[in-house]
Amino acid sequence: MKTIQIYDTTLRDGAQGEGVSFSLEDKVLIARKLDKLGFDFIEGGYPLSNPKDAEFFQRLHEKPLENNAKLCAFGMTRRKGVVAKDDPGMIALIKAETPVVTIVGKTSDFHAKEVLGVSLEENLAMIRDTVEFFVSEGKEVIYDAEHFFDGWKANADYAPQTIKAAAEAGASIIVMCDTNGGSLPEEIAQITKEASSAVDIPLGIHTHNDSELAVANSLSAIDAGATHVQGTINGLGERCGNADLISVVANLALKKQGYQVLGGDGSNSGGGAERLTELSRYVYEIANMLPRNGQPFVGQSAFAHKGGMHVHAVAKAAHSYEHIDPTEVGNERRILVSELSGRSNILALATKLELDKDKDLMGRVLKEVVELENQGYQFEAAEASFEILLKKLAGTFQPHFELIKYHIDVDRLPDGTPITEATVKLQVGEEVRHEVAEGDGPVNALDGALRKALAGHFPELAKMHLVDYKVRVINSEAATAASVRVVIESRDEIESWGTVGVHENVIEASWMALVDSLEYKLCRSES
Amino acid sequence: MKTIQIYDTTLRDGAQGEGVSFSLEDKVLIARKLDKLGFDFIEGGYPLSNPKDAEFFQRLHEKPLENNAKLCAFGMTRRKGVVAKDDPGMIALIKAETPVVTIVGKTSDFHAKEVLGVSLEENLAMIRDTVEFFVSEGKEVIYDAEHFFDGWKANADYAPQTIKAAAEAGASIIVMCDTNGGSLPEEIAQITKEASSAVDIPLGIHTHNDSELAVANSLSAIDAGATHVQGTINGLGERCGNADLISVVANLALKKQGYQVLGGDGSNSGGGAERLTELSRYVYEIANMLPRNGQPFVGQSAFAHKGGMHVHAVAKAAHSYEHIDPTEVGNERRILVSELSGRSNILALATKLELDKDKDLMGRVLKEVVELENQGYQFEAAEASFEILLKKLAGTFQPHFELIKYHIDVDRLPDGTPITEATVKLQVGEEVRHEVAEGDGPVNALDGALRKALAGHFPELAKMHLVDYKVRVINSEAATAASVRVVIESRDEIESWGTVGVHENVIEASWMALVDSLEYKLCRSES
Repeated sequence: MKTIQIYDTTLRDGAQGEGVSFSLEDKVLIARKLDKLGFDFIEGGYPLSNPKDAEFFQRLHEKPLENNAKLCAFGMTRRKGVVAKDDPGMIALIKAETPVVTIVGKTSDFHAKEVLGVSLEENLAMIRDTVEFFVSEGKEVIYDAEHFFDGWKANADYAPQTIKAAAEAGASIIVMCDTNGGSLPEEIAQITKEASSAVDIPLGIHTHNDSELAVANSLSAIDAGATHVQGTINGLGERCGNADLISVVANLALKKQGYQVLGGDGSNSGGGAERLTELSRYVYEIANMLPRNGQPFVGQSAFAHKGGMHVHAVAKAAHSYEHIDPTEVGNERRILVSELSGRSNILALATKLELDKDKDLMGRVLKEVVELENQGYQFEAAEASFEILLKKLAGTFQPHFELIKYHIDVDRLPDGTPITEATVKLQVGEEVRHEVAEGDGPVNALDGALRKALAGHFPELAKMHLVDYKVRVINSEAATAASVRVVIESRDEIESWGTVGVHENVIEASWMALVDSLEYKLCRSES
Repeated sequence: MKTIQIYDTTLRDGAQGEGVSFSLEDKVLIARKLDKLGFDFIEGGYPLSNPKDAEFFQRLHEKPLENNAKLCAFGMTRRKGVVAKDDPGMIALIKAETPVVTIVGKTSDFHAKEVLGVSLEENLAMIRDTVEFFVSEGKEVIYDAEHFFDGWKANADYAPQTIKAAAEAGASIIVMCDTNGGSLPEEIAQITKEASSAVDIPLGIHTHNDSELAVANSLSAIDAGATHVQGTINGLGERCGNADLISVVANLALKKQGYQVLGGDGSNSGGGAERLTELSRYVYEIANMLPRNGQPFVGQSAFAHKGGMHVHAVAKAAHSYEHIDPTEVGNERRILVSELSGRSNILALATKLELDKDKDLMGRVLKEVVELENQGYQFEAAEASFEILLKKLAGTFQPHFELIKYHIDVDRLPDGTPITEATVKLQVGEEVRHEVAEGDGPVNALDGALRKALAGHFPELAKMHLVDYKVRVINSEAATAASVRVVIESRDEIESWGTVGVHENVIEASWMALVDSLEYKLCRSES
């Protein structure tokens, strides 16, 4: 049984991803969450490069992590011609007051000479001096060997010297970084073995996903002897991202034999992975980013079955189309309703709503779904509409409002700006609500007017918002009366849900999807 | 030099992905694109399960693929107790009239017994009879061995018998399917070697991304002797998707030694990959799905450099932080503007319009396109808008009309019918034209009023009509001011063409796409 250390760099390398921006508060929350979930190392930032990171380290010094994670501050080797203790980078790292300092240095002769502009000898001195400095200051030092695999391939004499320099100076781990994400698993395995002959201290691996091999490369290095893996939650990071620690941890804990991670016991059912889904969604939420439905292990679709023949088999034997039990990563199985569905899809959703015992109802539901799908409805990105449909057919749906009328006006001002205004008149209980709103288009304006009209009665609607809106013309080859399908995705602080509307008129189709999205939220708030 | 066959199942397995829905027209467009780009096999659908697929095969029989791709129809082995020629599945496949039939059968003893409910012997007979039947009908038969690796691990006596049965019955390729996406690369390598001892015919690999190892698993099988790989464009597919053929092809063509794909010469710079970015975006556009910025090789961020130290290095030496040159996959680096040869679509169209000799113009065009794409424009499915843009920048575009104003009114009659009315006021030459029309929605109504206003001057517009209309919200993660992209497809008796508009207001975005579609037609009628 081998313990593999998990090193998270979401807050530093991950933060370099396009569209990723963490506030100080965000970073503190994520750090504490990772600590709680048993991560071994948390790289909090790059204080020389990013002044906000200096604040982060200060905050965590005042109120430290409560579990066993070791906080790491990241930086480069000292500058050429500067003594370590006078180097601003070193000073910034000392100020961070972390137990661990992670230093990145050049492995590649090309990078040393062309990018840093130093001789090969000077580069070794820079590595040695930097590591020695922090060791003498009582820090644990992790050495990130940049461009490790390319450097080794280019110059298999020089590359080992760089990591020996770090090891001899007192580094505790040498991390082999595939900085441009271009290495192949077999190269990683080969070079990891060679590197383990060059130094006596543990090896780690840090990969990028430019070839879609980051996870495979991490596992390859671990199989070849590395005992430390760096990555980010959800694979956030520059370009194509870092290795997704979610997938790495899940594979180590649940699929591969003999590895122990995150405090689990190393058996393929001994824990370490069951809070991965929660962690993944937490980080997305904090980062204000949309989760990827198809993300391995933790995505909303990871255990969602659509194809008629697959669903049939899943109903018969849970493991037959799933490689692990979804609950092992804190996820759940979903059955999708689609044009390929047979009875089993509908049955599964009806079971969840406890409507499945009524055979007559199930027959009517199937008939209605087939009919609607022929008209162009599609329910698998619109499960909320399907749930409402089911309730309507079962006679258990109570609408919260009725439409009396709506009106939309689109005008284009002389300067070219379009103005869209919608009015909505509703019956809400005893009251008639009549409101107007402007918007970026008819649907946006209708949505605004609808909410104005409902806000007084249903304040919970303030928590939901429209996230995505798709329009497709269907039956486009029909000479007359093509229909339009509108799918809306909404979310609140807990979940996201899709609704659908189909009509010849796109406004009416949008209206239907809008109403479903609000009704779904209102129904859920009551239960 | 080994040739690896690339088998695309975007239209069948990919279509099972959540939120993926291809119209007949969509499938035909994608199939022709794949054929043009040198794919070896195109799996068009599953006619027994999906009646729309039968139509697709009929359409491609009437107007076949023009290059070398072989069209495949997919289905299961014959049902138990039924003679092959009487089985509805077999009949549906024969009706598809494709050169190739792809049959999936059970490798796993568990699946044969528990899911199909047949004895192990009967399963072998079903495989044998089915393959023999299609071979006798003159088809090439590809045999997909479902749950291959799990089946082999569970029963290493039975699994080989299933593929021997298929091979002996005349199948041309045995495809090892990791159906639940749970296998590890080392298992794939091991079992592929064992399988190659069991049969004499070529082996293929079909993986899923449930463990984030689909691409690595495909490469592992190929290194172990497989010469055929199945997957989808952009990794579309159920759950976590199929192997992304974009990454598989890029790795084979540009990273690994000794493999030849898509008509390239097999050297790591010999082609086969340079149109991958174009292909990836084309399929996203047709599927009305948002591309993933961080997608390996072809994502918008794949070569986008943000980290301070990286950009500095990139400026110094292009390859230092990139594992391949972005133009090798038709992508581009962001920070530094890449050569036009990486934008094959711009160069090709400019050449066609005889504008390519003007270097200054080409520079302006590239700059403008990058700027527009940052705003959300996408020209892959909207080449008519691109052509107009090119002419505008070249100073050769003459608009046929100018908008003075438009107005739209949407009202819902007491009986629930929505009425949409649009008025349009145009300057056409010397004359002011002011017309009104009703429609199924704002865009349809605007289109009607526009044509009424232009019909007198331009009777040829009667020959064109709007075929498809797609709306996407872009930048949906931005807290404010999301934009909307509208893509319109139009056709006349000769060709079809796409146009695009982007704006915060969906009506204005639609207006822009509409105007481009009419102007394109009018320009073409003059030349």
